[in-house]
Amino acid sequence: MPAMMAKKRIRVAIVGCGTVGGATADLCIRDRALIARRSGVDVEIAAIVGGDFKHARELGLPEDLLTTDLDSVLNDGTIDLVVETVGGIDFPRSLITRALDAGKHVVTANKALLAHHGEELFAHARRQGLSIGFEASCGGGIPLVRAITDGLIANEIEAIYGIVNGTSNYILTEMIQKGETYPEALAKAQSTGLAESDPSMDVQGTDSAHKIAILSALAFGIKVDFEIIPVIGIDTLDSLDVAYGQDLGYVVKLLAVAHRDEEGVSIWVRPAFISKEHPLAWVSGPFNAVSIYGHAVGHTLFYGRGAGGEPTSSAVASDIVSVGLGIIPAVFENTGYWPDRNDDVTQLAEGRSNSQFYMRIMAADKPGVLATIGSILAKERISIASLRQNEQALEEELIPLVITTHICPEAAINRAVREIEALPVTGETVVVMPIVDEHPERVG
Amino acid sequence: MPAMMAKKRIRVAIVGCGTVGGATADLCIRDRALIARRSGVDVEIAAIVGGDFKHARELGLPEDLLTTDLDSVLNDGTIDLVVETVGGIDFPRSLITRALDAGKHVVTANKALLAHHGEELFAHARRQGLSIGFEASCGGGIPLVRAITDGLIANEIEAIYGIVNGTSNYILTEMIQKGETYPEALAKAQSTGLAESDPSMDVQGTDSAHKIAILSALAFGIKVDFEIIPVIGIDTLDSLDVAYGQDLGYVVKLLAVAHRDEEGVSIWVRPAFISKEHPLAWVSGPFNAVSIYGHAVGHTLFYGRGAGGEPTSSAVASDIVSVGLGIIPAVFENTGYWPDRNDDVTQLAEGRSNSQFYMRIMAADKPGVLATIGSILAKERISIASLRQNEQALEEELIPLVITTHICPEAAINRAVREIEALPVTGETVVVMPIVDEHPERVG
Repeated sequence: MPAMMAKKRIRVAIVGCGTVGGATADLCIRDRALIARRSGVDVEIAAIVGGDFKHARELGLPEDLLTTDLDSVLNDGTIDLVVETVGGIDFPRSLITRALDAGKHVVTANKALLAHHGEELFAHARRQGLSIGFEASCGGGIPLVRAITDGLIANEIEAIYGIVNGTSNYILTEMIQKGETYPEALAKAQSTGLAESDPSMDVQGTDSAHKIAILSALAFGIKVDFEIIPVIGIDTLDSLDVAYGQDLGYVVKLLAVAHRDEEGVSIWVRPAFISKEHPLAWVSGPFNAVSIYGHAVGHTLFYGRGAGGEPTSSAVASDIVSVGLGIIPAVFENTGYWPDRNDDVTQLAEGRSNSQFYMRIMAADKPGVLATIGSILAKERISIASLRQNEQALEEELIPLVITTHICPEAAINRAVREIEALPVTGETVVVMPIVDEHPERVG
Repeated sequence: MPAMMAKKRIRVAIVGCGTVGGATADLCIRDRALIARRSGVDVEIAAIVGGDFKHARELGLPEDLLTTDLDSVLNDGTIDLVVETVGGIDFPRSLITRALDAGKHVVTANKALLAHHGEELFAHARRQGLSIGFEASCGGGIPLVRAITDGLIANEIEAIYGIVNGTSNYILTEMIQKGETYPEALAKAQSTGLAESDPSMDVQGTDSAHKIAILSALAFGIKVDFEIIPVIGIDTLDSLDVAYGQDLGYVVKLLAVAHRDEEGVSIWVRPAFISKEHPLAWVSGPFNAVSIYGHAVGHTLFYGRGAGGEPTSSAVASDIVSVGLGIIPAVFENTGYWPDRNDDVTQLAEGRSNSQFYMRIMAADKPGVLATIGSILAKERISIASLRQNEQALEEELIPLVITTHICPEAAINRAVREIEALPVTGETVVVMPIVDEHPERVG
């Protein structure tokens, strides 16, 4: 079926012409006939708005589509949809609001914006009878948003465990597989273009937090307060702990987690040890994967490239098509999981969840130290699962004591750690990481 | 949002009350408010049609919904959708046709029916302005059909590699991890209810072939001729080859594969060795997983429970909701990947694909045997990647010679094998299995 025979047609302006905007324009223009044949929607790129068209010209995008005149594009009544790929928060927030006011649907890959202002923008779209596609905001090309809002719609979602930052996962993979230190692995990621020159959004966990905030809002129907999500990145990770974890049968991953219990939903991002039996432990290099547990479906996992122009353009283009078919508008109009529509579930404050934990305490090799630490843990009713005192050179003053616990309240661990850190016979910092085993399924 | 406040309502009759029908009725009735709140669709189960309500009564389904009177249900103008969970081919084929004639949408989990008659039924639905949801036909609760028809819609699909039969994967996992023989592992699967008393559809590969036929039709837009799909099950697998494969760094999996090259699409089902680096190698026990490679998105993988009442009911219920929202009807009306709409891609006949191969030849331990075999392979231009002659007890007449090849045409391997099998110094049967490494991505 040639493009002109497609049943539906949608005219699209792409604002921003960087990695994602450029790749989206390229995919939609180059593969217009393919997309029309498969989807029944003829996607016509009507304008590419930017300030700098260096990348557009490298890609060979048509010159006559390139424009700096955003106002004309927003005033063009023949344009049905605006794709926002600018990045940042203030400008795209205002851009999306203006596009909605001008009667245009919106597709965006902007996770930072949606994590902070998704509720406001979704509500505005609905008031206008319009919709916002945001598949590309979480997990690049992996159809994750659709999994929650469509494929798993009949489930109560119980938990989400995600590896949603490819840069961090690449660095961790290098540290695990090649024994590199964090600075060595980061330098390699930067040299291959996987990490930016300022990698802080990725390695400090902020990017992962944006994504889990968006997925949690959809999955649990909660208003997520981004500011209270505890976020720890991989930038403080010591290769010593990576190695000890491996000895214990675990793999370290930067996990973005949201899980629900009777009290509410806990959301956090931090390096965690995951059992080698869990499929997330297999995810290596720049790939992303997200485990979603539903009350009927049990454990599902979605894997793919979480970043990069082409994979992300796959998600943006599927959203454009979906708006063209009326699917995303129908979902926006009817479904009830948008954060601005729910208020019956609470996001729990930090330290309210239960987990197994790994602790590395640097302690003096003296009689009584172990007894003191043991009594602090006992007072908090923390039960020890394993304990290792690893041999060290004699001249070292403090030696590492590695403890894993059975499941206990995070608050109890935090209290115990503060007390242990204050002891005269221990180092200033106790390393604490959650240990994640297979989440219990209700089915199967 | 209570159920009565949902914007849309859909009245559903479920025909068949076995594992899937019962679980679907149970999910939709028990979690009606949850589904309405999340999806905006109030799913009302209006009737459960069956011949025997033993399972329905075990589940405590409402007595007033149970009926044997199919005609009344089909004649009931207030019923919008019929769920077919009967199984078999002839009766459900006629049932679905009648339901469509009566103006009702259809949702089915019946892979055998769709693999053989999907084209006819899809075309009939479209002529009636209706739709058929079939997410549950492939991969149980994993949203696989949606991945191809929605999330990855802007991609040219290049390949699908699936583990889509949980019974077979459970048996193989037991053989690999515990060194059990096929009969031992099968007996255990039967005792835990994972394999039926007649396991032939699962272990002979037919069930996997049904699923890859359906997925291939959607992904490549081809009319699949089910009869020409080469299908080999796990029932002839020797634990010797499982062990040799492990030594070589591979894991044996029952793979359902469809991949496209310039000439067309090759579809096959057979036990294959998969590199331990490939995520599919990690899939253990009764879980299913499917790798889908798109030209823009690269490698994506979808994992979950591929069978069982509750996981499958998650897929059936999501289809009901999707029909209620008008999504599946819009997809049916507009999209172009239905097999009855395409005729520009060819399904290749058996032996037309290229692969690496594993061969185990039982050969006499005499001078010249290796040279003879080597010359046969050389004549077919098959290049040897590795060769092992494993030590055996002296009284054995024939000893195993394990050869892996570089990529070569399947037809060449088949010719060479026939010639080797005819040698006086070899056993009657050469074991041949494809070796699957990571499929090349165009991106990344």
